[in-house]
Amino acid sequence: MAQFLGVDDYLKQRDALIQEDRSLRREYMTAQLRSPLEVKADEIVRKIRAKEAATVWQEDHPEILHPFPGMEFLTGRKIIEKTQIFQILSKMPKGALLHAHLDATVNVSLLYELALKEQAIHVRIPEQLTAANIGSVLPEFRGLPAKSYGLDGISLTSSAYTPNTWVNIARARETFDTSLGGPEGFDKWVLDAMTIRPDEAYGTHNTVYKAAIYLHSIWRKFTSTFIVAGGLTRFMPIFKQYLRLFFLSSIEDGILHVEPRINFLSKLAIGADGKENVTHRDMLLIYDKVIQEVKAELKQRGQENKFIGARIIYSTIKIITPEELNWYLEDCIALKKEFPHLIAGTFRFDLVGDENELRPLIDYIEPLLQFRKRQAEEGVDIPFILHAGETLGDGNLADNNMYDAILLGTKRIGHGFSLVKHPKLIETCRERGIALEVCPISNEILRLTSSMPMHPLPVLLNNGVPVALCSDDPSVFGNMGLTYDFFQVLVASEVTGLSTLGALARDSITFSSMEVEEKELARKAWEAEWTSFLEYIVAIA
Amino acid sequence: MAQFLGVDDYLKQRDALIQEDRSLRREYMTAQLRSPLEVKADEIVRKIRAKEAATVWQEDHPEILHPFPGMEFLTGRKIIEKTQIFQILSKMPKGALLHAHLDATVNVSLLYELALKEQAIHVRIPEQLTAANIGSVLPEFRGLPAKSYGLDGISLTSSAYTPNTWVNIARARETFDTSLGGPEGFDKWVLDAMTIRPDEAYGTHNTVYKAAIYLHSIWRKFTSTFIVAGGLTRFMPIFKQYLRLFFLSSIEDGILHVEPRINFLSKLAIGADGKENVTHRDMLLIYDKVIQEVKAELKQRGQENKFIGARIIYSTIKIITPEELNWYLEDCIALKKEFPHLIAGTFRFDLVGDENELRPLIDYIEPLLQFRKRQAEEGVDIPFILHAGETLGDGNLADNNMYDAILLGTKRIGHGFSLVKHPKLIETCRERGIALEVCPISNEILRLTSSMPMHPLPVLLNNGVPVALCSDDPSVFGNMGLTYDFFQVLVASEVTGLSTLGALARDSITFSSMEVEEKELARKAWEAEWTSFLEYIVAIA
Repeated sequence: MAQFLGVDDYLKQRDALIQEDRSLRREYMTAQLRSPLEVKADEIVRKIRAKEAATVWQEDHPEILHPFPGMEFLTGRKIIEKTQIFQILSKMPKGALLHAHLDATVNVSLLYELALKEQAIHVRIPEQLTAANIGSVLPEFRGLPAKSYGLDGISLTSSAYTPNTWVNIARARETFDTSLGGPEGFDKWVLDAMTIRPDEAYGTHNTVYKAAIYLHSIWRKFTSTFIVAGGLTRFMPIFKQYLRLFFLSSIEDGILHVEPRINFLSKLAIGADGKENVTHRDMLLIYDKVIQEVKAELKQRGQENKFIGARIIYSTIKIITPEELNWYLEDCIALKKEFPHLIAGTFRFDLVGDENELRPLIDYIEPLLQFRKRQAEEGVDIPFILHAGETLGDGNLADNNMYDAILLGTKRIGHGFSLVKHPKLIETCRERGIALEVCPISNEILRLTSSMPMHPLPVLLNNGVPVALCSDDPSVFGNMGLTYDFFQVLVASEVTGLSTLGALARDSITFSSMEVEEKELARKAWEAEWTSFLEYIVAIA
Repeated sequence: MAQFLGVDDYLKQRDALIQEDRSLRREYMTAQLRSPLEVKADEIVRKIRAKEAATVWQEDHPEILHPFPGMEFLTGRKIIEKTQIFQILSKMPKGALLHAHLDATVNVSLLYELALKEQAIHVRIPEQLTAANIGSVLPEFRGLPAKSYGLDGISLTSSAYTPNTWVNIARARETFDTSLGGPEGFDKWVLDAMTIRPDEAYGTHNTVYKAAIYLHSIWRKFTSTFIVAGGLTRFMPIFKQYLRLFFLSSIEDGILHVEPRINFLSKLAIGADGKENVTHRDMLLIYDKVIQEVKAELKQRGQENKFIGARIIYSTIKIITPEELNWYLEDCIALKKEFPHLIAGTFRFDLVGDENELRPLIDYIEPLLQFRKRQAEEGVDIPFILHAGETLGDGNLADNNMYDAILLGTKRIGHGFSLVKHPKLIETCRERGIALEVCPISNEILRLTSSMPMHPLPVLLNNGVPVALCSDDPSVFGNMGLTYDFFQVLVASEVTGLSTLGALARDSITFSSMEVEEKELARKAWEAEWTSFLEYIVAIA
């Protein structure tokens, strides 16, 4: 207490208290090592941020009533893209992307372009499409065998359309009724079905409090985008090109390693011949091939340091029963054993989906505990990387998943949004080095937080919890790459600066599933790019 | 980690971890002392809460798109009032009210009724009132001397109205143009000017990110309600009746002690004769008189345990300069010295207002440090009870006020909304017993949180920070008493139960400014009422 202190002594006490309060932050662990270059670049970025907070974020923007830094992403994106901070961050080396669902990682327009070129891709709907139902009827896509192609003569918008009849996608586009916008109307209908619009997130579907079965749940809309896109990505000729686009666009944004979750709920995918006979093993072979191709191309251009590689987090969805889970656990072990050289030690078992409505982890505790024993028997090690705490609940099932994830020895936590409520678990994450995969834009669009200033990330950072920023479902949310997420985090806090972003990127490498040597490679590559990045900032000032 | 555990052992580990994680909660400090009666009542309330979450909160309500427990208060209030939980909590003994601004503590309809009966009360506006400007022009009220009454012939809505001319309030009401709703239109105009409507908080003014000078800031609307109501409460004949209504309505809601902040920015108030010559000393004499009258009445009815008493937290607003602050600090010391017997040891210096836009505490550090010395010289002890951290900012001036409040030795913290970001300050509050005055509904309407499930209160509770729930400005927000705030807290968390609410009420007594003997009295009275309350719950089940 500052009894009878003079102002100078008071200010000294104050500085010491602030420093102590922030001493757990991970960028301060190496603060003494900050180069004069980093200190200078940090100051420059802080000045630009302050200037833009008072200029571009205070101006009138058409249709945006209350702009502010860190505002609702879908509404504010146009302003974000105008800022110098965004331009700068687009050049930042981001480290590794540790939390993204593969089916939502490539810009929907690009996926749609791929689909239009595939003669096998067909679309169907359960009823004729009209002005009245175009907002609610969703396209279902699928690659078909050539012998089934004949039935595609009739438009989806024609009264002669037989419900659930497959129509070739290009043909469906051409014959889309002009009253619904013609071919461009078809484009819009398809793309809308794979993304979330601002009026959905912030208007009609603005609630986290309803299960996906409810008409106005944001999770209903969110889930439906996956069903639509999944019809395309499950077709292996598209899958292969899709993977390539995912890796290349990630690299373009400064990401040097990715660990997407692949949803293996469907036991078989669809091959070039339109037959549903592609196994998970076949998919992994494709995955590995694309990695090698991309790496070879980069090497040819002398850019091999831009992409260390990719892993897969084996995932399924918590709609299955505990008994059904066993099949996937065994599948995971078998794949791990069959391809130890291919995807060494990187398979993870994960469970994704709306935690607030699906089964809690505790329901699966028997097979999950059994999984440990089975790994020991088979001589493999597949650590858990579990989703937990993606909820506003306090002591509800989804919040309590945090206890199970940690007791099960999870290596990282997907989201962990509710961790801030748990002092003991915060301590555990800090001490055991359990990193949180924090997805700021996803949390906001799925209405766990109304804007970035309300997001609990500063609580995690000040408590020294390791954090990797992630995009989650960028094609659905429109936050392609990691630049947008880093942007939202930087502009919403005056404590957070460039060094914080650097610490987040470093942690994404540290807590990745890369092998020791790969991590060393990745670190060296990242540090070199970081220095170039700082030099670039100092040069533009 | 649960390697190779059986399910039974796993569940034991899990229970132990959950208990450890919640061991700092203040209701668990005395959990062993929970009576079987309390345990039973707690279970009953949890059941009713679960039932209502699945019934009344899931039903369709006209004009409420997405109802859920803990939703936006102004929209959900009608549903809240239909619930059994609300009926139950209205009977709960609440303890002490430690954070409320006096000018916003009595239902605006009652204040308005008082005003209509006072011949001296006049109203004026800067321009003739029309359909076009009725949404933005605010009434200014004032008690006038009798000799000024003659000018009140012309309607505020008449084209003959001379801007800024005072009109008697009853006359202004009678002559209010029928096109604007006649007398009822006047009533609505006046009441709207003293409250926040749902469409303002959640629509037109839905942002915390603008200073009060901005047209659409919720703080602009909020501040204006005080200016309007202050014109009435500054008139001493109303002030006296207003105090009485405040005490009686608080008692009615189960509150046994109040510590309102009185805004002493105006050095003089207005007396019955319409002259601006009433000193702060005069106001305190009135305050004390009303307390004594209310206590006497209660004693006569054998209900003296329902009201232990009232204090005042001396407050002013951070628009003043550090030099001007000295006058108020000396005023506070003088009052404390002159009336030690009257309001023994209860004066506090406080600074209220929108922290995000007004001066930070650090600007006043010289007079504030000097204040300590002056108290020692004068032989008085006036601990600070400061507002701090009522902000979404991270490391901005308002957030940094938290450091100053604590370094200045604040006894409690008004709001402390941003405390959760500060691990060191959380520890300090827990260890030194600095209680937070948490105002859930205020925080939500002023857009620091979008709903109760997003409020950081669970973080505070799980970290063992002492908390007193408070209403802040109930006449503006419509959360009269403390029942609504307790309701919002209870329904938004499955960890929080009746015992948590009991702990919050107990802490409001423990961390109040009552003298030792008064606290003892209050505790005994509260415990007796708590037992009756539990018996009532068990009886209705």
